[in-house]
Amino acid sequence: MEHTDNKLNLTMLTDFYELTMANGYFQNGFKDTIAYFDLFFRRIPDGGGFVIMAGVEQMIDYLKNLSFSEEDLDALRGHGFSEAFLDYLRHFQFACDVWAVPEGTPVFPGEPVVIVRGPIIQAQFVETMLLLCINHQSLIATKANRIVRAAQGRGVMEFGSRRAQGFDGAVYGARAAYIGGCVGTACTICERDFGIPALGTMAHSWIQLFDSELDAFCAYAREYPDNCTLLVDTYDTLHSGLPNAIEAFRRELLPRGCRPKGVRIDSGDITYLSKRMRKMLDEAGFPDCSIVASNALDEYIIRDMLIQGAKVDSFGVGERLITAASDPVFGGVYKLAAIETAHGIVPKIKLSENVSKITTPGAKTVWRLFDRDSGKAIADVITLMDEIIDERAPYELFDPEFTWKRKTVDNFLARPLLRRIFDGGTCVYPAPAIEKIRSYCAEQVDALWEEVLRFENPHQYYVDLSQKLWDLKHTLISQHRENKKAGNPQS
Amino acid sequence: MEHTDNKLNLTMLTDFYELTMANGYFQNGFKDTIAYFDLFFRRIPDGGGFVIMAGVEQMIDYLKNLSFSEEDLDALRGHGFSEAFLDYLRHFQFACDVWAVPEGTPVFPGEPVVIVRGPIIQAQFVETMLLLCINHQSLIATKANRIVRAAQGRGVMEFGSRRAQGFDGAVYGARAAYIGGCVGTACTICERDFGIPALGTMAHSWIQLFDSELDAFCAYAREYPDNCTLLVDTYDTLHSGLPNAIEAFRRELLPRGCRPKGVRIDSGDITYLSKRMRKMLDEAGFPDCSIVASNALDEYIIRDMLIQGAKVDSFGVGERLITAASDPVFGGVYKLAAIETAHGIVPKIKLSENVSKITTPGAKTVWRLFDRDSGKAIADVITLMDEIIDERAPYELFDPEFTWKRKTVDNFLARPLLRRIFDGGTCVYPAPAIEKIRSYCAEQVDALWEEVLRFENPHQYYVDLSQKLWDLKHTLISQHRENKKAGNPQS
Repeated sequence: MEHTDNKLNLTMLTDFYELTMANGYFQNGFKDTIAYFDLFFRRIPDGGGFVIMAGVEQMIDYLKNLSFSEEDLDALRGHGFSEAFLDYLRHFQFACDVWAVPEGTPVFPGEPVVIVRGPIIQAQFVETMLLLCINHQSLIATKANRIVRAAQGRGVMEFGSRRAQGFDGAVYGARAAYIGGCVGTACTICERDFGIPALGTMAHSWIQLFDSELDAFCAYAREYPDNCTLLVDTYDTLHSGLPNAIEAFRRELLPRGCRPKGVRIDSGDITYLSKRMRKMLDEAGFPDCSIVASNALDEYIIRDMLIQGAKVDSFGVGERLITAASDPVFGGVYKLAAIETAHGIVPKIKLSENVSKITTPGAKTVWRLFDRDSGKAIADVITLMDEIIDERAPYELFDPEFTWKRKTVDNFLARPLLRRIFDGGTCVYPAPAIEKIRSYCAEQVDALWEEVLRFENPHQYYVDLSQKLWDLKHTLISQHRENKKAGNPQS
Repeated sequence: MEHTDNKLNLTMLTDFYELTMANGYFQNGFKDTIAYFDLFFRRIPDGGGFVIMAGVEQMIDYLKNLSFSEEDLDALRGHGFSEAFLDYLRHFQFACDVWAVPEGTPVFPGEPVVIVRGPIIQAQFVETMLLLCINHQSLIATKANRIVRAAQGRGVMEFGSRRAQGFDGAVYGARAAYIGGCVGTACTICERDFGIPALGTMAHSWIQLFDSELDAFCAYAREYPDNCTLLVDTYDTLHSGLPNAIEAFRRELLPRGCRPKGVRIDSGDITYLSKRMRKMLDEAGFPDCSIVASNALDEYIIRDMLIQGAKVDSFGVGERLITAASDPVFGGVYKLAAIETAHGIVPKIKLSENVSKITTPGAKTVWRLFDRDSGKAIADVITLMDEIIDERAPYELFDPEFTWKRKTVDNFLARPLLRRIFDGGTCVYPAPAIEKIRSYCAEQVDALWEEVLRFENPHQYYVDLSQKLWDLKHTLISQHRENKKAGNPQS
């Protein structure tokens, strides 16, 4: 088994239908047909106003390392694939163009956040992993950003590894949480590999091991005098834990010229306890000692705690962040948008009885319009790839569904959202350092109107189509309707 | 970065506090203190009656491969750890005893499902990954088992990779789903690595690529005449997709002497559509053609579909299975239960203002009592490790909370639930083949009374303590109460 020595060949982490289709394309002469696929989503988790894009770096790693081993080919034999196809896989070399929205960017329903253009056999094949990378990390980055905003400037630490859904759930979840604004993680490997600060002090077992709570605290304070945070809820927070912590600070830190860093509570009524603790700490001469809270927190609980005046200085957030527990699925999809033929680009549409599931056809790009005065984002506009939005002229936005809703904007900046990531299979995008992504994220969230930032019932940010793209989409819908009326099913 | 070449050193996938504590134990002379830790959970996801144990094999892989590289040690420097401790890590060799409940076994709240005994510095260190392995896979195996039971004998395929929380979320999630009773997965790598059947046919893009739906279907049928399942909802299920599928079956399969395998729908009102489709397929001479349904299914939707008479023969279940979306956190915990001293085993307890959070102290084991006549599981009994339940004598069960609730059983088999996995750091347990685990799981679920199997308000299966263990627990609770009354906080 590959996993025992930690080598995971991600090429084979693909839905099996990608392979049945790939072989089918190969056998039917479509091997070199150039296709465009859009990766987009339809719904924002938790009813929020935006999603934080994340997972691009892991998507790049995956695409750079795509290749089939002989062992992989052996595993595929016996599924009815042609030997010629297996030989194609043996020499598989990624040759697509890829565009993606940079990590940390707020993104919205319906807009392509990744576009892949290339031989359909390849552009189709990468579907599963592209979705997996973007769906997972965008889900967690978005959730983290909500929790961080609820904490109103107080630090939020990611503490969820033990409840993550798999090893990568923990590792890349912590990465995404940091992008979303967390200050660090308990997951040690993330410091080594991503440079994310690793944080953590003690479990209840540390206290249980010693003959007394005070002994346990004193031993810890002696060992880490410069970084001493004590867990005070093992026996009784107010009557044992906190008095013992104060005593340990006095015995072990003050004589060394050190100050306590904090006390942590992981159970009980944290809002009530934190107020009592703050008072006791202040009276004991430790107004600088932080109170850290953990225990099944999320943005809703943190918001309520702060409304009730909890005296908490930072939060350790575990299971509800690392699994995005209140809404744990991010539903990005990957749809064919166009193919190239001798006559040019042929747009493709997927219809649905559910109007919101009709895709937007064509080779496209996305623009974000910013107000020059306020710096705030006004709207995103999806256009055909060869369209350019002229900043010097007024631009008329219109709702793609209720087209009478119109608004003309001027004095704006128009910025393309998508960056070229791969050019003919070669990576041309230097992935930014994670600190850069994190600060870019904070800055871009700041560029949203506060109406979009609400946790509940946010203003729906405009994502419009250019007139040309709208016309194209509706022409295709009409054509399909005509075909259907003529009793002419897709035959 | 390690991840780009797919090498994940899981030793460093640990909560940072495991390291601060480890260094603290080392510096305080506790390096060789023998401790017992219990891994257990308090709550069953989705309000169900039991959990399916899973993840033991990955836990074993992790423990077998525990070691720190020089790179790891470098990454840890600067955190205030002593060089002597880092040198200890350099030569770290796992030396613990480990017991675990075999994968596929139904398990219940409060009982230790993994026990680790060994030097506290080691037994503590492995906490994060042991929890991660067991929490994740048990969550998914339990969810899968619910969905499989809802399907009442119809096949359930795991289709969720693209919405999984990380790569391992997809891979080990598919493994756990198979243990829980799924018939296969779309995740190709799981066939190569675990031997789980990989399944899948086509996406909508296959149909969109061709000039017509019928062309697309015919091309697929020609390519896979022995395994032809067609996706019929791209344009219009009843008026385009199914008629074209029937036509393709007639044109391409019948002349080759082949029969269709199935048609799949991924949208619309599946219950209604499946009845219409069944009728059309039967009338067209294809009563043997299965109807496969997918699209955001789970046990609740499947149950309702079948109650309403949906004619679905198998289900592809994606996001709601692979993330256990309705309740995505499995809250296993890992608690110190005892240490060994010169005077023998000293039990340890963690108190809590929340009674259900008080731990059960001591070095323990777990027995399952089966009725000899019916073969059904009657109760689990947690005892001290050196106790034996004598099958030849009547045994009195009693509720550990409401101790007046008593029941004497006889004519029973008493089976120890935990198996020895590691002996002094050496793995002594041959992990069973996955097929064996899967069939053992089905068999053990069958041994539960149907009252325990209910999705809502199941009967609460008895998990009792032996009299000796109950006495020990309550003696420790009383001692702590006395200390507190005497104004004697843990000091």
